[in-house]
Amino acid sequence: MRATVIHAPHDIRVEEVPDPVVQRPGDAIVRVVLACICGSDLWAYRGEAARKPGQRIGHEFLGVVEETGPEVTEVRRGDLVVAPFMWSDGVCDFCTEGLTTSCEHGGFWGSVGHDGGQGEAVRVPHANGTLVRLPAEAASDDRLLTALLTLSDVMGTGHHAALGAGVRPGSTVAVVGDGAVGLCGVLAARRLGAERIIALGRHETRTALARRFGATDVVAERGQAAVETVRALTRGQGAHAVIEAVGTEQSMRTAVGITRDGGSIGFVGVPHGSGSGLDLSEMFDRNIAVRGGVAPVRAYIPELLPEVLDGTLDPSPVFDLAVDLDGVPGGYKAMDERAALKVLMRN
Amino acid sequence: MRATVIHAPHDIRVEEVPDPVVQRPGDAIVRVVLACICGSDLWAYRGEAARKPGQRIGHEFLGVVEETGPEVTEVRRGDLVVAPFMWSDGVCDFCTEGLTTSCEHGGFWGSVGHDGGQGEAVRVPHANGTLVRLPAEAASDDRLLTALLTLSDVMGTGHHAALGAGVRPGSTVAVVGDGAVGLCGVLAARRLGAERIIALGRHETRTALARRFGATDVVAERGQAAVETVRALTRGQGAHAVIEAVGTEQSMRTAVGITRDGGSIGFVGVPHGSGSGLDLSEMFDRNIAVRGGVAPVRAYIPELLPEVLDGTLDPSPVFDLAVDLDGVPGGYKAMDERAALKVLMRN
Repeated sequence: MRATVIHAPHDIRVEEVPDPVVQRPGDAIVRVVLACICGSDLWAYRGEAARKPGQRIGHEFLGVVEETGPEVTEVRRGDLVVAPFMWSDGVCDFCTEGLTTSCEHGGFWGSVGHDGGQGEAVRVPHANGTLVRLPAEAASDDRLLTALLTLSDVMGTGHHAALGAGVRPGSTVAVVGDGAVGLCGVLAARRLGAERIIALGRHETRTALARRFGATDVVAERGQAAVETVRALTRGQGAHAVIEAVGTEQSMRTAVGITRDGGSIGFVGVPHGSGSGLDLSEMFDRNIAVRGGVAPVRAYIPELLPEVLDGTLDPSPVFDLAVDLDGVPGGYKAMDERAALKVLMRN
Repeated sequence: MRATVIHAPHDIRVEEVPDPVVQRPGDAIVRVVLACICGSDLWAYRGEAARKPGQRIGHEFLGVVEETGPEVTEVRRGDLVVAPFMWSDGVCDFCTEGLTTSCEHGGFWGSVGHDGGQGEAVRVPHANGTLVRLPAEAASDDRLLTALLTLSDVMGTGHHAALGAGVRPGSTVAVVGDGAVGLCGVLAARRLGAERIIALGRHETRTALARRFGATDVVAERGQAAVETVRALTRGQGAHAVIEAVGTEQSMRTAVGITRDGGSIGFVGVPHGSGSGLDLSEMFDRNIAVRGGVAPVRAYIPELLPEVLDGTLDPSPVFDLAVDLDGVPGGYKAMDERAALKVLMRN
């Protein structure tokens, strides 16, 4: 088959690779219908996250089950399925509790020896715990299928951030980060009943989408100026719940600055850089909590899926560029240059 | 009157100071019956927290109302009262929500221009919001009175840590710090239904008290060895809820290491040192939350008071040395040298 391979920073190629086969009794082979490029893939693309030359890449995909091992009971050949961005066994202590990202047998697509999502097919370990079946009729609805793909990562990650931030009915929420995850955080906050949603960003296409998703205010300033503007919008107090969807020291510092005393930061931006941006003394004085991390999106799919299916939750507009498999390297370039927000790949 | 004054690191004296008088309509004057020395007072004593020469000191006290300003309606002359370690107006947004430490008109005993708790009397601003009336009969029960004094800080702070750590019925809890707050954290965790409480400490008198308060396990190791021992006690997973009651980079690092994936650290140790000890990447990968800060103990008194009064909650054993006002400087020395756990002052 053909799949996307990363050879070095800025060197992403689509190449012929071995066809995936069932290796263990719990494996399934999924023929990829839709995949996409994640903001976190860019860290590898830019060389800021280490990859061995020849690793596959891509961790968000949706497709049709082609083959199953003898222990696979939850999905069958021909099923339309979505995969979360990590596989998990579904039965260990952590999976049972809903923290599928801490699964004792979990792992990442594209790790050494494993297929990535940006290819023609994927061998899925622990298919029973990992894959979620979708209604077959969704396959013929392009908009819906695209929305369903976001359950593999960005929509679930935005939801995780909103939960970590403690969004409740009536909350004032601020969102740091105008990427697809931040925008899904806006959707998630609205869904959880936020009364006011302040999106931080200056890229007009993105802030327009934030407003469409439910943002009531947009703050274009950065750093200390952003902190002052958010405070001015909130009677000097800051936001009850802050979503941090960037992962840099500076963005976390901004997040702390705009959080109301007693509030929480839901952090889902993969941490980068040497410092955390967390001023523990300020957090102590103002009782600011930090809660989040890698999102157990597998556990959130059952809750979010019905709303995506009935159209009340529609994250599909986060995709603003579609390519085929051969167009994936160009898709990386477009996202790296911020010419595209999030790139969809159609096989 | 006479009161404790800090002139320089290691230079604490008991001196004649002006008698407190009602300055504002909401003030009350409280004649101190019991006060005590806090672990956090030692940071000033050691010069690690800055004080102006001549500042008063002490923030935990209990006494009898001697005089009230015209706006004071909640307490009256002759009432036995306990004061939390900060004053607060009781009516602002934050007080109404229970975050009295973020009160718009709040402040600290012993700050410049204000009395400290370690003296004969204290002018209490915002007496309506700050002071809590105690039953008069408690005055004649020395054990009870001592237990009630812990509501001014350490018991409420231990409770705040347990809430921040998310202690629930059945939780496995680990407590970093064997000072009075850590020990009160053990009491608070037991009270909230923890099934297993692992106390980290090597000072035998203190660990014996931890066991008396409800600790089921004691870990004497430190650093990475402590992390490994706690993991060995918890099937390799760590504790659901971790109380951090020290405030150093090392203690926070230990706290992160012993927290189970998806768990929370309730931090109440006043942060010291340049680094936070928070490895954000580890917190991200394992979904570890940090929640806590300066404890709004005023808000907790109504909940904890009935149990202290009926004896089901008895933190009084944290006091292991009693002095009179003249003995306060010696009390600091004893606590600084860890010869005393917590020093009670009786007027």
